[in-house]
Amino acid sequence: MRRKLIVVSNRGPVSYGRDPDGTRTAKRGGGGLVTALRSLVQYHDVTWIASAITDEDHVAAGETLEETARDGSPYGVRLVAHDPQAYDWFYNVVANPMLWFVQHSLWELPYSPKLDAAFHRAWQEGYAAVNENFAAAVDAELSRTPDAAVFFHDYHLYLAPRLVRERRPDASLMHFVHVPWPQPDYWRILPKGIRNAIHEGLAANDIVGFHTDRWRRNFIYSVRELLGEDVTAKTVAAPISVDPGEFDELAQSDVVLRRERDLVANRLTKLVVRVDRTDPSKNIVRGFRAFELYLDAHPEMHRQVSMLALLDPSRQEIPEYAEYLAAIQREARRVNDRFQQSGWRPIDLRIADDFPLSVAAYKQFDVLLVNAIFDGMNLVAKEAPLVNQRDGVVVLSENAGAHAELGKWAVTVNPFDVEGQAEAIGQALEMGSDERRARLEAIRQHVRTHDLNRWTDTLLAALDRVAAPARR
Amino acid sequence: MRRKLIVVSNRGPVSYGRDPDGTRTAKRGGGGLVTALRSLVQYHDVTWIASAITDEDHVAAGETLEETARDGSPYGVRLVAHDPQAYDWFYNVVANPMLWFVQHSLWELPYSPKLDAAFHRAWQEGYAAVNENFAAAVDAELSRTPDAAVFFHDYHLYLAPRLVRERRPDASLMHFVHVPWPQPDYWRILPKGIRNAIHEGLAANDIVGFHTDRWRRNFIYSVRELLGEDVTAKTVAAPISVDPGEFDELAQSDVVLRRERDLVANRLTKLVVRVDRTDPSKNIVRGFRAFELYLDAHPEMHRQVSMLALLDPSRQEIPEYAEYLAAIQREARRVNDRFQQSGWRPIDLRIADDFPLSVAAYKQFDVLLVNAIFDGMNLVAKEAPLVNQRDGVVVLSENAGAHAELGKWAVTVNPFDVEGQAEAIGQALEMGSDERRARLEAIRQHVRTHDLNRWTDTLLAALDRVAAPARR
Repeated sequence: MRRKLIVVSNRGPVSYGRDPDGTRTAKRGGGGLVTALRSLVQYHDVTWIASAITDEDHVAAGETLEETARDGSPYGVRLVAHDPQAYDWFYNVVANPMLWFVQHSLWELPYSPKLDAAFHRAWQEGYAAVNENFAAAVDAELSRTPDAAVFFHDYHLYLAPRLVRERRPDASLMHFVHVPWPQPDYWRILPKGIRNAIHEGLAANDIVGFHTDRWRRNFIYSVRELLGEDVTAKTVAAPISVDPGEFDELAQSDVVLRRERDLVANRLTKLVVRVDRTDPSKNIVRGFRAFELYLDAHPEMHRQVSMLALLDPSRQEIPEYAEYLAAIQREARRVNDRFQQSGWRPIDLRIADDFPLSVAAYKQFDVLLVNAIFDGMNLVAKEAPLVNQRDGVVVLSENAGAHAELGKWAVTVNPFDVEGQAEAIGQALEMGSDERRARLEAIRQHVRTHDLNRWTDTLLAALDRVAAPARR
Repeated sequence: MRRKLIVVSNRGPVSYGRDPDGTRTAKRGGGGLVTALRSLVQYHDVTWIASAITDEDHVAAGETLEETARDGSPYGVRLVAHDPQAYDWFYNVVANPMLWFVQHSLWELPYSPKLDAAFHRAWQEGYAAVNENFAAAVDAELSRTPDAAVFFHDYHLYLAPRLVRERRPDASLMHFVHVPWPQPDYWRILPKGIRNAIHEGLAANDIVGFHTDRWRRNFIYSVRELLGEDVTAKTVAAPISVDPGEFDELAQSDVVLRRERDLVANRLTKLVVRVDRTDPSKNIVRGFRAFELYLDAHPEMHRQVSMLALLDPSRQEIPEYAEYLAAIQREARRVNDRFQQSGWRPIDLRIADDFPLSVAAYKQFDVLLVNAIFDGMNLVAKEAPLVNQRDGVVVLSENAGAHAELGKWAVTVNPFDVEGQAEAIGQALEMGSDERRARLEAIRQHVRTHDLNRWTDTLLAALDRVAAPARR
């Protein structure tokens, strides 16, 4: 059934610039969220509301914009202009360090965070103000298409649903949270007014979706502890996925094949691969330490195995991220200084945004290490097995959302247990080829039958179940 | 009803030495736990099982020991000798840094802990071995008095109850957890085998007690998430308390009066007092920062108020504790360097174990700051109001167990919100005298009617309710 949808996310599917001759140019947005929502545009009538980022975005913010997806599907765009100071507070003070760190349990509580007057202002005049702008834009769009369902995304927009609900008691509102949901005591890091506003904002939706039942249960628990409400009936667990066809194509693309030739030319017998942003939640430092412990225990594997770490530098304007990147480099250096020999560097660390190289590494891994501290889903664990050509084994953190689906075919690790991770790397490297192939094939089969379309179908069906009685 | 009780705790009520002439000497143990359990010895037939610490304790470990409490009540003591290496692993690797840090949510998860082979060995050959020794001692004591109820204490002994239960299916077992119970995702820091063993160990009791309903609910939730069991019926919330008569006496003792004279001689008009161990859970650094923010906002109060921080140095052999003490000293120095004037030091920092001085400060505070990150109970919040003579106001963390009882008469703070704490200090200093007096009186009234005897009565009654059917 084709339906009218208003998709709301901070980053949009397109941003605008200007050619030297003055004509407006449109650039497609990257990022997982935009990719994930592509099929919505194909099958439904979508208007996408997002923040204006560039100067030309701000010019376009007053206009009704019509765009065309890669496959030719038309969709509408409405850009929301924010005061630049408000946006900076929203994005660089509240959403990215504070909420991200809370939702991934990353704070060192004896010392940080220290919530001061600057933070309180950033919350009120930044996060709350930007959410108010989004709510006003949704309200205006609902005036145009009153029977559209609204589909909010992620941790940037926790306040908007309630603000829309106050104006539109009958609207169909759904929110998907792409990050882990922590348990209520961790939410208590935030002052009562703020943590309650976040939970009340989300609870104003008809449906709140999470990748896994674990994050969903945590949300139910935290609403009950903090607000005393039972929101069970409003929640749904729907694991996001990928478009397998896209990866089949990518794997055969010229640019990936070129990268793959370089990789194969230099490769040793065995390759342990990790692909991540340089985010403290990704647990890269402990991964290097675990590989060191593995090399310690297996001198016979020196020169026979190396770790390829493809790391996309992330949010370097936030001090905690800059510090984490430094710690990554220090730890890799320490391990290499200890073990490296002429012609063998144990850890091949590459800090760059090079997606084709990542896909080449997906094809060539013997072991894929995903040891995240906490991770909403982790799509690398789904993408890489799809195209792998070496019966590679996935070593997977029990705290990654992907573990709920793929854990039974992966080697499970506790992300804090470096000894356990060293043993898991050994177990993966020594696994017999039949078992490796069977596990990899099972993961592929699962991802192919649980693809991105299934994710959107599950969410829209949940919205129908809840919203239908209200609309009747 | 007088009953037979076997009290089990790591530190016991007495430890032994030898005079130069070779006679054995007994020294009473200090510490909150021993004080708290004093009344048990008065009203019941108690045998106390504890670790042998001193050389003479190890000599005495084979013997049946009879001791006499301060009030003349007799009780038995059984000391358990451990291998010194096992005890070091148990105490200085597992119990005090690891379990304490997990239960107070103190780890900086991107970097620590890193569970290595040394930790796994410390768990198995230290914590598990010491718990096995305790279980064997309890079993031996139950052979002597089969109808005694066993009363375990705290985070040192999580494995012992199950080990006893395996040998004695019909024994009456109770455990009291004196620290906060974190939520299941924080327990997941520990590898599955370890976290499950902790929960299974506790669940082998007939009754598990916590200071507050919040910690009790967390325990129920974490057993359900980690083991899939419902232990609701086995749990009880019973807030520990103090003996008000003891503080009435102390307040009038010579040594306290002497300290009080010194304090009054030097005092400014207003005094903000904190009394803590130098433990990262106590949130001392943020308390100084909050006081700085208060002074910033209230130049008219310079020279009119100071903060007296009486801090007992704690566990300095653990690096995180040594670092925290350094951070405390640095922060106090920074604030003093910024504001101090001839004759006025904003923060009077005293690192010493001086209980009489603490009681003198209890009598003299205008504001008592208890801003703990997480705290099982926090007895300072109960002790100090009992003897205060200045209608002092309690500023109390919402994450301290004491907040469940005293919150409505305190000024509540979020421990991470330094701006909120600065405002709370201001609110407390400016509060009118009638309101101050009414709040203080209400806290006193509550503590006097909810004293230590009530705590033990509640726990023993809970044990009777559950254990009675089994014994019939």
